Amino acid sequence: MQVTRQDFGGGPEKPEPETVLETAAELPLSGTDEIEHPSSKVVRFGLDAALRLECKQDLAPYQIAYETYGELNAARSNAVLICHALTGDQYVASAQPVTGKPGWWTSMVGPGKPIDTNRFFVICSNILGGCMGSTGPASINPKTGKPYGLEFPVITIGDMVDAQARLIDHLGIETLFSVIGGSMGGMQVLEWAARYKDRVFTAVPLATAAWHSAQNIAFHEVGRQAVMADPEWAGGKYTEEGRTPRRGLSVARMAAHITYLSEEALQRKFGRNLQDRTTRTFSFDADFQVESYLRHQGSTFVDRFDPNSYLYITRSMDYFDMATQNGGVLANAFRGTKTRFCVVSFTSDWLYPTRESKEIVQALNAVAANVSFVEIESDKGHDAFLLEEPELFATMRGFLGSAAAKRGLLPAREG
Amino acid sequence: MQVTRQDFGGGPEKPEPETVLETAAELPLSGTDEIEHPSSKVVRFGLDAALRLECKQDLAPYQIAYETYGELNAARSNAVLICHALTGDQYVASAQPVTGKPGWWTSMVGPGKPIDTNRFFVICSNILGGCMGSTGPASINPKTGKPYGLEFPVITIGDMVDAQARLIDHLGIETLFSVIGGSMGGMQVLEWAARYKDRVFTAVPLATAAWHSAQNIAFHEVGRQAVMADPEWAGGKYTEEGRTPRRGLSVARMAAHITYLSEEALQRKFGRNLQDRTTRTFSFDADFQVESYLRHQGSTFVDRFDPNSYLYITRSMDYFDMATQNGGVLANAFRGTKTRFCVVSFTSDWLYPTRESKEIVQALNAVAANVSFVEIESDKGHDAFLLEEPELFATMRGFLGSAAAKRGLLPAREG
Repeated sequence: MQVTRQDFGGGPEKPEPETVLETAAELPLSGTDEIEHPSSKVVRFGLDAALRLECKQDLAPYQIAYETYGELNAARSNAVLICHALTGDQYVASAQPVTGKPGWWTSMVGPGKPIDTNRFFVICSNILGGCMGSTGPASINPKTGKPYGLEFPVITIGDMVDAQARLIDHLGIETLFSVIGGSMGGMQVLEWAARYKDRVFTAVPLATAAWHSAQNIAFHEVGRQAVMADPEWAGGKYTEEGRTPRRGLSVARMAAHITYLSEEALQRKFGRNLQDRTTRTFSFDADFQVESYLRHQGSTFVDRFDPNSYLYITRSMDYFDMATQNGGVLANAFRGTKTRFCVVSFTSDWLYPTRESKEIVQALNAVAANVSFVEIESDKGHDAFLLEEPELFATMRGFLGSAAAKRGLLPAREG
Repeated sequence: MQVTRQDFGGGPEKPEPETVLETAAELPLSGTDEIEHPSSKVVRFGLDAALRLECKQDLAPYQIAYETYGELNAARSNAVLICHALTGDQYVASAQPVTGKPGWWTSMVGPGKPIDTNRFFVICSNILGGCMGSTGPASINPKTGKPYGLEFPVITIGDMVDAQARLIDHLGIETLFSVIGGSMGGMQVLEWAARYKDRVFTAVPLATAAWHSAQNIAFHEVGRQAVMADPEWAGGKYTEEGRTPRRGLSVARMAAHITYLSEEALQRKFGRNLQDRTTRTFSFDADFQVESYLRHQGSTFVDRFDPNSYLYITRSMDYFDMATQNGGVLANAFRGTKTRFCVVSFTSDWLYPTRESKEIVQALNAVAANVSFVEIESDKGHDAFLLEEPELFATMRGFLGSAAAKRGLLPAREG
């Protein structure tokens, strides 16, 4: 566990110096050890290093949990920040401690992979509001000694990015070679490029949008209502009461999961195939494979995710609207940018359709930014960015390779 | 209330004679009066007129509640059966007794409307499994004196159609001039055309499919799990226990409602507009109009619909697959048909996309059926078939007018 005091590198927001509040052993335990004491590295910011949130509240203390892969070069110029999506975490390329499963993007990140950890120093942090070690609603509220629950402030994508920036400061990195992420990770990429213009050499927003659509807000609201409808949610105080809104969170995950796939992918994977039976049972059993699959997705999710975190993170996405935040003109967010952008969408992604990526590209073009755009043919829906997509891998290799050359990074590992 | 003994007109299935089992006053009351004693007409079938269901069970007694509009002509040749969708009912063009709201298709059905009640005798019955007076899971199980709940057999679209056929027999109608319906109503239209080939002069399946897709099964499963996750559902025995799974059914309705609209329609109607406020509240209130709208849709639905009915009807749709039911070849369902078909889809309907209507048309073409197909440009999504769509109205007028002329129906009302 890395708990060190260090000067900030100094971003445009000139944050106050970080302090270590207390040692890990002194912190009371919450629902799981991963919340306060993650298996990954963690950096804590104390009362004198409060994070000013968009809701005008100051958050202090808080901590950010993160993983790193590869080595930072002597010039500190090869750092890549990967931003995870709604239910992701810092374990981008290493085993997730709760599930024991491989990292969520091992096809993309690792030695010799498109985001090559022999070449790049990869950082991935659990977002603020998450439940894998960064401060969120499941964390202990130092004022009460109990989990925050709904006392946690409603955070935004911008707040997540500001917290990440403190981590990057802490690591002594002035400029990130790249900020990369899909879905909500892509929203963070856009905020990074907008908020920290001088600190982002390249930005790769994948399968994302500059604002959350009405349909996406609607699906999130269904998920939140499903969680809150579960009496085990107990007004958000389930941990204190020794309960868990398993069924509500499971329903929320099931609904969301449908939106991550395309109709074609569901049809191809499951169609109307029956599950372990040859005929309809004329019952409410999971006759169809797609039912069984969804129920499994719901029930396994509950084992690894905090229900209140789900509420807060979906809310942050609903609130995301870089146009409104910039006087109604998205291009304003990027005015003066020198960052090189690579925007990627997938043809069958109906959660963040290509049209919404094009709006980002148009805004970047309007400020004469350096931007390339790729729409990748895929029938895998929104989840395509996480899956084996050779064209995505080729795009990433090509873009990062070319940018690395411009940045003067050597192909082989330095160090 | 119409409770009469009458000989059957005699369909291809030669049903046994109907008998009146008991008078309405002798029946115990269920959750609402509308379940056993609907405000509409109702016909009851007794123990000697059991309905053989696809699950191989016999259902008896049972009743079918229905409304009629216009007058049956002397030749009994002007009857139009309208089949309602998942949450519809028999009140197609008259006030719904629970909500007091106008019928669900008053733009389409009435004097001078595209389905002109000055010309046609319009029948609309509550489906078997429903909760507005036709027998369903909320009805009293005569064996126990309590509501059926999960003791009710799992029914199919074909079962619904067979029950409707008994009603049509009861009304002394041999051949329907037309069977018309959208969504699940369209599935019934297809089953009518397949099961009762000689009794359907024209068939109009709107915004529907010949089998339910994996994605649609998935959304239904989410809805069912939301209902069943609610402890107030009580294993389906909520009425006996004086409870109602309001929150679960509300979440189910919210999720389903998103699928009835297009993303474009949601964006046009709501976008990211805030509800009665000028700024985000940084809370879980319904900040956005689309959230407020969905919550309203959920909560009002609960007041008028039985949760178990919702489970059963969604299940019947999931089970619907006319290809598999016909040896894997959809065209087999329609072999030998003389019915004139008018198949209609809507460009922005992603629940039953045009592709699925075209599969119906191709199957009909394969058996040289008389079929016209119209894809209507609309941004209103699946719900377009229920809304003000001038092209739909023109299509219906044109198709029905031309068919009526072939059928020898006079334009003016007959006596």
